[in-house]
Amino acid sequence: MSLLDSIRTPADVRALPEDRLPELAADVRERILDVVSAHKGAHFGSNLGTVELTVALHRVFDTPTDKIIWDVGHQAYPHKILTGRNEAFPTIRKKDGLSGFLRRDESEYDTFGAGHGATSISAACGIAAARDLHGSDFEVVAVIGDGSMTSGLAYEALNNAGATDRDLVVVLNDNQMAISPNVGAMHTHLTSFRTHPLYNRLREEVKKLIHSAPKIGSLGELVEHFAVRVDDAVKGMFVPGMIFEELGFRYIGPVDGHDVGKLIETLGSVRKMKGPRLVHVLTTKGKGFAPAEEDQVKWHAGGGFDKLTGASLKIGAAGSLPRYQTVFGEALVGLGEEYPHMVTITAAMAEGTSTNLFATAYPDRFFDVGMAEGHAVTFAAGMATERVKPLVAIYSTFLQRAYDSIVHDVALQELPVLFCMDRAGLAGDDGPTHHGCLDIAYLLSIPGMTITAPKDGEEMVALLRTGIEWEKGPFSIRWPRDTVPAAVPSISSIQPVEYGSWELLREGSEVVLLATGTMVLPALEAADRLEARGVSACVVNCRFIKPLDEAMLRKLFLTHRLAVTVEEGTVVNGFGAFVARRVAEEWPDTRVITMGLPDTFAAHGERGELLVDAGLTAADIEERVASLTGAVERQPLRETA
Amino acid sequence: MSLLDSIRTPADVRALPEDRLPELAADVRERILDVVSAHKGAHFGSNLGTVELTVALHRVFDTPTDKIIWDVGHQAYPHKILTGRNEAFPTIRKKDGLSGFLRRDESEYDTFGAGHGATSISAACGIAAARDLHGSDFEVVAVIGDGSMTSGLAYEALNNAGATDRDLVVVLNDNQMAISPNVGAMHTHLTSFRTHPLYNRLREEVKKLIHSAPKIGSLGELVEHFAVRVDDAVKGMFVPGMIFEELGFRYIGPVDGHDVGKLIETLGSVRKMKGPRLVHVLTTKGKGFAPAEEDQVKWHAGGGFDKLTGASLKIGAAGSLPRYQTVFGEALVGLGEEYPHMVTITAAMAEGTSTNLFATAYPDRFFDVGMAEGHAVTFAAGMATERVKPLVAIYSTFLQRAYDSIVHDVALQELPVLFCMDRAGLAGDDGPTHHGCLDIAYLLSIPGMTITAPKDGEEMVALLRTGIEWEKGPFSIRWPRDTVPAAVPSISSIQPVEYGSWELLREGSEVVLLATGTMVLPALEAADRLEARGVSACVVNCRFIKPLDEAMLRKLFLTHRLAVTVEEGTVVNGFGAFVARRVAEEWPDTRVITMGLPDTFAAHGERGELLVDAGLTAADIEERVASLTGAVERQPLRETA
Repeated sequence: MSLLDSIRTPADVRALPEDRLPELAADVRERILDVVSAHKGAHFGSNLGTVELTVALHRVFDTPTDKIIWDVGHQAYPHKILTGRNEAFPTIRKKDGLSGFLRRDESEYDTFGAGHGATSISAACGIAAARDLHGSDFEVVAVIGDGSMTSGLAYEALNNAGATDRDLVVVLNDNQMAISPNVGAMHTHLTSFRTHPLYNRLREEVKKLIHSAPKIGSLGELVEHFAVRVDDAVKGMFVPGMIFEELGFRYIGPVDGHDVGKLIETLGSVRKMKGPRLVHVLTTKGKGFAPAEEDQVKWHAGGGFDKLTGASLKIGAAGSLPRYQTVFGEALVGLGEEYPHMVTITAAMAEGTSTNLFATAYPDRFFDVGMAEGHAVTFAAGMATERVKPLVAIYSTFLQRAYDSIVHDVALQELPVLFCMDRAGLAGDDGPTHHGCLDIAYLLSIPGMTITAPKDGEEMVALLRTGIEWEKGPFSIRWPRDTVPAAVPSISSIQPVEYGSWELLREGSEVVLLATGTMVLPALEAADRLEARGVSACVVNCRFIKPLDEAMLRKLFLTHRLAVTVEEGTVVNGFGAFVARRVAEEWPDTRVITMGLPDTFAAHGERGELLVDAGLTAADIEERVASLTGAVERQPLRETA
Repeated sequence: MSLLDSIRTPADVRALPEDRLPELAADVRERILDVVSAHKGAHFGSNLGTVELTVALHRVFDTPTDKIIWDVGHQAYPHKILTGRNEAFPTIRKKDGLSGFLRRDESEYDTFGAGHGATSISAACGIAAARDLHGSDFEVVAVIGDGSMTSGLAYEALNNAGATDRDLVVVLNDNQMAISPNVGAMHTHLTSFRTHPLYNRLREEVKKLIHSAPKIGSLGELVEHFAVRVDDAVKGMFVPGMIFEELGFRYIGPVDGHDVGKLIETLGSVRKMKGPRLVHVLTTKGKGFAPAEEDQVKWHAGGGFDKLTGASLKIGAAGSLPRYQTVFGEALVGLGEEYPHMVTITAAMAEGTSTNLFATAYPDRFFDVGMAEGHAVTFAAGMATERVKPLVAIYSTFLQRAYDSIVHDVALQELPVLFCMDRAGLAGDDGPTHHGCLDIAYLLSIPGMTITAPKDGEEMVALLRTGIEWEKGPFSIRWPRDTVPAAVPSISSIQPVEYGSWELLREGSEVVLLATGTMVLPALEAADRLEARGVSACVVNCRFIKPLDEAMLRKLFLTHRLAVTVEEGTVVNGFGAFVARRVAEEWPDTRVITMGLPDTFAAHGERGELLVDAGLTAADIEERVASLTGAVERQPLRETA
């Protein structure tokens, strides 16, 4: 029995003799390695980096009375393991299993849910403010990574908290990586304060003073000695985290984040201090697993590898279909050559969006602005005013963070920025914080915004061409976190899609299926099955969500009186509602039934499983149409219905 | 003829002898005073503060080849006056007149449109990056106020630009006010660096060294002398803008923003430098007009006053109806007493939302977090986890900035945060950057979000009660920038609205008018007019936009086959589309026609004028229904139709 087996709650961590804590940390690390090595897609490096920190936090702070607010949550596996979820740990990110992030409904130790970065300090401020209103007495600790420090939200919270004397601890977990190597001045600042302009200027001043001092015998020596001491003092002032002192925080650190004893000592004394405090902890992503320490980007999320050597256990995927993001990344390299005025911008998602391929090919035309979606979009808008075509690659769920920049800086000025949304729809095992279910709805409302979704990889490339060539305003393309359904021909052979055009894929007389993006092929399959049941369904690929193809609508509703829309996005006010409203206006005798994601936050699980739960499979479409057309009476239901 | 009359473009400013520039500045100031004193609602104090800065910028930089990017735009009247818009200046903020903010389509000197704060540095980064790609050679200057520096977007841009060596000038226009007195550590930092912890720590070190130095005769004296010089050097280092040096900018300043000569000299030398530079300019809001200098909050926007004394020219408005925001502010004071666990949070909009009344009554329960909407919402979410009821008061248009915080931090965790959106719908003369036309659409898509809109001030208070008492998730209330249509009884006499309930205001047999918020009374008026034309219209007050009142829908569609929805929000995927989709599902024979704001960005002008343009008056509703019900044939059209 390992030491870890004896830990049911953090109280058990606090009850251990301190000298056994390194052993506990080793057990936790081993447990993560065991589970994640056999587990596809789980976060890895970040969790190996926080093992000692987590042990120390639960040792020093009286959780759950004291509140720890973890940022993002992809570094909180050790926290889960130490807070009663060790047994369930192998279910992480699996359907009905533990979340890969933090959830208030999963544990009382998950003080505040997370998934997106940089929310922890804001939430901690709110919790601390509420505590003070109640006159309660407990500690509030936000743990945030250096990557999240590039986000404006973190700054807003620091700036707000730093102006108060509220008791609040921020632990800066500095692994100097985030998902990709960090960008931004804050990063430079944290890593190389010795190049700091102020530091250098101050040292220059001291040097000047030494030179100007009278050089007479022991007097001169003394002055020089004194000057050296001043120089040392100056050096001592320029701690890496000085900027936090500027913002009103007391800065403590840096501390070795893999030395449990040192961490406990530091956090213990920090606990006794008052006001806003920031503890700077240096950790190594992938700590304790050599391959992950060496290639931290690759091992951000791992799974399916030999836990000793790191060798992949996957059977070579030769001949299998590539992911949308890969097709996108490779297409960008070709398109970048054809369209020399095109640039690519992302917000700390270069690997996740595959724009790193573009970055390698055209480093001068690639901009990773850090975890700063709002800035990415307004920056793109600025570029678009100067004869440059910016392509902004951000996941659907993260683009929510730039909503006002899209409206106020891009759309209002009709600037031709191209938005490329990866992970649109159900994002799979990342779960509710990462699903991209709202983009159709939130973009539809923006005047002048074009919204598109391809049915496959080839059409994605075609839409990219259309979008790059479109100069009349913003243009967006959404695609799923999935493999493409069919092989993609060479980029140069793919022609743009005609702007605003839908594609009639299948004629039919009883019902029109208006499907978009990932739902086009299931709709086609449903139509085939319906034919076997005597129902004649027409299928249209609505690759343009906005604007609608008015000519096609006119043609369709000359004869049709029933339409079913299908989309992988919220059904509330998405494509279907947009169509229903338009149809009621012009074709009063035509009924529009909408299929889409239910108006709830979908759980985590495999994408395929979640689509079944959401009722968005070919079989679901088939049954819905069958019931609408009376085919249920015409023919017995299939067994699965 | 004044000197200003000779200025047609900034080239004329550059052609003047430098000693005449103070006279030009005086002319510009006089012109602003003349026009704004006779002008309701125009921005005032901020523009008097930037007169000399604007003259100096156009003197030093070769506009429009060099690009000046103004933040917000409410301080850009002098810029408009000097860039060919002096003659048109009296039309500012009037329908078809000049915009009160910046618009690319208004002048080639408006490099980047604005209205919301903190976008200028991001846009300037983009413009500078595009310039460098093209190998062009011009200067890029972002002008930003200290208030915008509390926004995360400004930080994201500084952090990004500071890590590059890109040539870029940021002018920090520091009037120490923004709209309300500033909040946040950045503000403290800018105003009182002498209390800076680092500054103090470094001085302590120097003191210690002095004490430890041998005190023997002239030797001791010399050391002491030397130490004093070091102390001075240290003091000199701690300029107010040190934080910008931390972020990779070269800091220059502070400079007196009302000394044209000094400004020209400073900007001239800044122009010759390379890399990211920040010039700190100190200005006084309301400069040159004593009443405005003394009460800067009151004079942020002025109009209708005697330009010598500042006395209001308005006829006393005794007996007239109050604004929604005033009713809200006063209600909060009463509700704050009834609900002691309620707190109010705003984001630099205390006066604009009237939450300053709550702040005065309950200073401990009021939180103005600065121009930081995302933080405001996540902070509220944190509080909501701790038995506190947060009420977040943010204009509809600015809440767009917190979209992801609403989704990820509030709704996903079902936290009972109450959102109070002022200026929802057409915001009048502030124009397209400030209209709140998208909130219904962007909130509708969020699972678990309740959305409401009152028909009048009394119902607003009733909904506030309902919202404060609602504990099952987020709740939102939207109201217009307008006066309430009827007097409001005492707060304590107003009961909450039943959750989810609509109100049947008028029976009718031919058509159902489903109206929400500001459109309820016009719908009632339309129904009255229609009755005179022989059309019987039922009118329902849909004070809940989400969820729909299903019981009422069932009752209505037992008999009705035609519904018209009316809302002051985008028609694309708002309330109407939400209803249309639901009705098509359940009541296939019923037709839903949607009326709302067209899918374009509305211009600026008086709210009433804009509603006419948008086709959202009682007369518009009447005509639409008449044409749908065949009443057009039954009875001749009115002359106005």
